[in-house]
Amino acid sequence: MKLHGYFRSSASYRVRIALNLKGLSAQHLPHHLRKGEQRAPDYLRLNPQGLVPTLEDDGGAVLTQSLAIIEWLEETHPEPPLLPKDPLRRAKVRAFALVLGCDTHPVQNLKVLARLRQLGLPEEQVTDWAAWANREGLAACEALLANEPGPFCFGATSTLADLCLVPQLGNARRFGVDVAAYPRLLQAEVAAKAMKAFADAAPERQIDAE
Amino acid sequence: MKLHGYFRSSASYRVRIALNLKGLSAQHLPHHLRKGEQRAPDYLRLNPQGLVPTLEDDGGAVLTQSLAIIEWLEETHPEPPLLPKDPLRRAKVRAFALVLGCDTHPVQNLKVLARLRQLGLPEEQVTDWAAWANREGLAACEALLANEPGPFCFGATSTLADLCLVPQLGNARRFGVDVAAYPRLLQAEVAAKAMKAFADAAPERQIDAE
Repeated sequence: MKLHGYFRSSASYRVRIALNLKGLSAQHLPHHLRKGEQRAPDYLRLNPQGLVPTLEDDGGAVLTQSLAIIEWLEETHPEPPLLPKDPLRRAKVRAFALVLGCDTHPVQNLKVLARLRQLGLPEEQVTDWAAWANREGLAACEALLANEPGPFCFGATSTLADLCLVPQLGNARRFGVDVAAYPRLLQAEVAAKAMKAFADAAPERQIDAE
Repeated sequence: MKLHGYFRSSASYRVRIALNLKGLSAQHLPHHLRKGEQRAPDYLRLNPQGLVPTLEDDGGAVLTQSLAIIEWLEETHPEPPLLPKDPLRRAKVRAFALVLGCDTHPVQNLKVLARLRQLGLPEEQVTDWAAWANREGLAACEALLANEPGPFCFGATSTLADLCLVPQLGNARRFGVDVAAYPRLLQAEVAAKAMKAFADAAPERQIDAE
């Protein structure tokens, strides 16, 4: 498999963790987002959004959108599971992932922040915006875990929720968010980062890390 | 079941379509988003994000995030299916849904537009922002369907993709987007809107429609 990504992209980071947890290897093909390499015509043919990640499987199939890629990995390589078996528990894990995947990360991604700059907002307000999006999402996630046993987001093993949480906390810190406000999320992060699958997927360990 | 929603919320609209397609009925509990009713303490206890929809099932379980709710409906009420059987096809349908559910709708929702106004942007720029987010998402979706047979997004029957598309096209029009630029999407919309499950879920047919 080939994974088109970027070391600092949190959506790419989620898929890297999933591949590692499933024991799958992929050739990593970096696209430098700040240099606009994701807008190259050859890449847009694979991913018309011009976003990372994109996964090419061994048969040449092209998959986009990190959460769709992870659901596909879960369906084609079920062990170890990234979702619980019970439908209601699956819905809880997915809802947590979507708070971050839908309502948090896309509101603070590179493209949206670039648009804010185009509208003339000073850099301080752009960073405030990104911090706000992260605080809103993380506060909701902290509340969603109020009655969930640890150490991971949803119990004794890592799930899709942890795959989304760890990269998002990295973003939050980069934008200056005081993540100490989310102790339950930090507990899950500690548990996750102790796993080799998470550690090996970290931005600073990627071939394109700066 | 009880569905907490708002007639014009496109995320609520998705779930209404899914319930109708599955032949399930729910009591509709409207929360007027423009009056801030989704921030009421009682509602925040159900949905800490203060967003709609929220689904309460007959056993009292609380589900949030429209796409997680729809996946739960699919798992607990498999017929008629909202996703194809083949994992790769499922990934294609989910990716399309996520282009709209992650990268389009949350970037133009009420909360984000309110934040832009707080930053001092004039109403015209706020509308331009929302139109931009819709154009970006819909253009990517049009490209994703380039080789897909119609009349629906992914073939002869409606899927999760159509559930996300129809509400998003409604948003796009409200923000002044020229949707004629997306003929393949419009073809799918026509096919979907001809179905009673989609028609009955339309904003103007809801009890709280204005």
